[in-house]
Amino acid sequence: MTAEVICVGTELLLGDILNTNAQFLAKQLAGLGIPHYYQTVVGDNPERLKQVLEIATARSPQGGGLARTQILLFTGGLGPTPDDLTTETIADFFNAPLVERPEVIEDITRKYAQRGREMTPSNRKQALIPQGADILPNPAGTAPGIIWQPRPNLTILTFPGVPSELKRMWQETAVPYLKSQGWGKQIIYSRMLRFWGIAESALAEKVSSLLDLPNPTVAPYAGQGEVRLRVSAFASSETAALELIKPVEQEIQQIAGLDYYGADNDTLASVVGQLLQSSGQTLSVAESCTGGGLGQMLTTISGSSSYFMGGVISYDNQVKISLLDVNPEDLAQHGAVSDLVAQQMAIGVKQRLATDWGVSITGIAGPGDGTETKPVGLVYIGIAAPDNTVESLKYQLNPQQERSLIRQMSACQALDLLRRKLLANSSRR
Amino acid sequence: MTAEVICVGTELLLGDILNTNAQFLAKQLAGLGIPHYYQTVVGDNPERLKQVLEIATARSPQGGGLARTQILLFTGGLGPTPDDLTTETIADFFNAPLVERPEVIEDITRKYAQRGREMTPSNRKQALIPQGADILPNPAGTAPGIIWQPRPNLTILTFPGVPSELKRMWQETAVPYLKSQGWGKQIIYSRMLRFWGIAESALAEKVSSLLDLPNPTVAPYAGQGEVRLRVSAFASSETAALELIKPVEQEIQQIAGLDYYGADNDTLASVVGQLLQSSGQTLSVAESCTGGGLGQMLTTISGSSSYFMGGVISYDNQVKISLLDVNPEDLAQHGAVSDLVAQQMAIGVKQRLATDWGVSITGIAGPGDGTETKPVGLVYIGIAAPDNTVESLKYQLNPQQERSLIRQMSACQALDLLRRKLLANSSRR
Repeated sequence: MTAEVICVGTELLLGDILNTNAQFLAKQLAGLGIPHYYQTVVGDNPERLKQVLEIATARSPQGGGLARTQILLFTGGLGPTPDDLTTETIADFFNAPLVERPEVIEDITRKYAQRGREMTPSNRKQALIPQGADILPNPAGTAPGIIWQPRPNLTILTFPGVPSELKRMWQETAVPYLKSQGWGKQIIYSRMLRFWGIAESALAEKVSSLLDLPNPTVAPYAGQGEVRLRVSAFASSETAALELIKPVEQEIQQIAGLDYYGADNDTLASVVGQLLQSSGQTLSVAESCTGGGLGQMLTTISGSSSYFMGGVISYDNQVKISLLDVNPEDLAQHGAVSDLVAQQMAIGVKQRLATDWGVSITGIAGPGDGTETKPVGLVYIGIAAPDNTVESLKYQLNPQQERSLIRQMSACQALDLLRRKLLANSSRR
Repeated sequence: MTAEVICVGTELLLGDILNTNAQFLAKQLAGLGIPHYYQTVVGDNPERLKQVLEIATARSPQGGGLARTQILLFTGGLGPTPDDLTTETIADFFNAPLVERPEVIEDITRKYAQRGREMTPSNRKQALIPQGADILPNPAGTAPGIIWQPRPNLTILTFPGVPSELKRMWQETAVPYLKSQGWGKQIIYSRMLRFWGIAESALAEKVSSLLDLPNPTVAPYAGQGEVRLRVSAFASSETAALELIKPVEQEIQQIAGLDYYGADNDTLASVVGQLLQSSGQTLSVAESCTGGGLGQMLTTISGSSSYFMGGVISYDNQVKISLLDVNPEDLAQHGAVSDLVAQQMAIGVKQRLATDWGVSITGIAGPGDGTETKPVGLVYIGIAAPDNTVESLKYQLNPQQERSLIRQMSACQALDLLRRKLLANSSRR
């Protein structure tokens, strides 16, 4: 059994967009233990798409039973516009007629009505499905995909190119389907361990003895301030894989200490959320250079309203004075980017919003506004604690980084600082 | 003439990394006007790599002269470890012996010495170059690539997988080489036009007569609430391309009216910023469900401090009362997600921060907290104007969408609403 990924879209060949779908599907196939040897990108061109189909189907694997099965995963070209050609081209290749499916018409009509709009004539072609194919529903978008076996031992699944729609269709329909067909018996299962406050090379050296293990394997990654270790096990089930992974994970956690903050879907925001939730404490934020980004991060967590009350975006200095009670003379003398102002912002928002904790960020995101004494990337983070003490820490982020990265890393740094203080506080109780 | 991209690397097929090299090369080829119709990803496997070579070389284009030439660009597999097989496999496919090139040995030795290290035995294979091939130098890394014409009308260029090394080799050596061979005389240059507030199918129907143009071409795209039209021209220079694009762009803008908001690097935040800047007016935001995301979007723009003063993240209802002066009885009676509260939030923040405009967002981001009368995706946006009038608009976003997308689209919707009001206001002055 093998699976190939075929991404359809001229925008990929023009380099307009990054092919994240290919990575997602490859990772998913690895997770299901389905061998995957080829990916192809082709444009919105029926002749070339048919050539690709010819080549891919000629590569059908040898062997008996399940081993002989081939899966072709297509992304893109399911939209309503003239250059969306995937479904009709695939049907044409296998000489199957297209049939208009009324349930798809109904579904598209209903989705448009919900948004106060009407379905347009061009949407009708999205309801044309090859005869004999099943519909792969697309709850978050308009165009459905198909699950189709046009000939024995060949299964075709099509998805739209929009990554969020594809991922949802994959999880909700494709994975259960593939598992029901018997795939995914041996799996590769991974846990992604996350670290903040330590460089990749430093962490890799701390865990160097673990980087040569055969199963599970440990691989380091880094990006945007975060460092990760992927621990992957090849086993017959998730449970068996975890039995291999857990001891290694525990050893890594012991070695890394507080630099380890979570795994997989944990984020600094979710971990901080859990700590606040279990202590029953509340939080507010006072943001300058991040402009609301810290609040945005905290509120990505559904249910954050139980601990996050809100905050003040004091982008302008006058707002720091009027809404956060920062002393105008201190502001004038020390500047907004200073320990003193960071502390006053933190205490100010804590008091104004009557929360247990107050966190502030003030800094220079760049690319302009840096000086010799206060360069781009300089950030102060203030933390006001439940006992009304307040402290601030100074960070110098790499000034060569883009504005957006400096802002993102500042917000993460603030979350990590709060995380460590919450952990220290909870161990004292 | 055509160019194909072949990315070699098992890590790509496992989904461990994102294939940014493919996008980079595709974009570069478009910029040089070199037709590019296929991309392939294959693992570190000689048999399958040879199959891919077989398929690619069989696709050599027809025609006379330069038109018949084919370029194959390879990335990956040039390293010193056992799984790095690209060079030897390509040589094997064309039955060419490998020759150790002393200048490469010297170069690698020197690079290692610079870092205080010694070349290892495994590096020697990186000096094995197919007989007759030229070396493609790699100043930022170890492994050189090759430029080779193993047969008439076929040119092969190989690059390491490390993006920074590839980009440098591409710019410093590959581009001058391709231009010297006569390529890049014609380029493909595109403008990406951006729209908000209209569905892709509706816009495509409005511009349907333009979707068949041969040069420039017009192609629709959509994602996350935004709709785009890519206008691409094939011409001898960027200037000549723009001469072809501009009339079509103008026609599209006329057809689309206010649904068109900008092009290329324009964002709703940057366009709103320009409008506020030119009117000399200021803005504050009052955010509930977006938690700071609207402020974060506005402040992605460097220099936004000249018009964006800040705001209040009133995530909890008590904060709406204490910091935005929302009437507690109205809040209790109508709920936070209502026209009335949206209006009070907008006027409240405008007055508290003494800005010309105040924008509010209150809604249900999901996945929980939806009811029959107030479902997930229901959002109210309030706008308080300089003359102290305030209005609110209600939106029902697709409740099936993820929380993060609902929040992002709410913020964009608020920006678009403000954009249209600013445009209306400026045309009245």
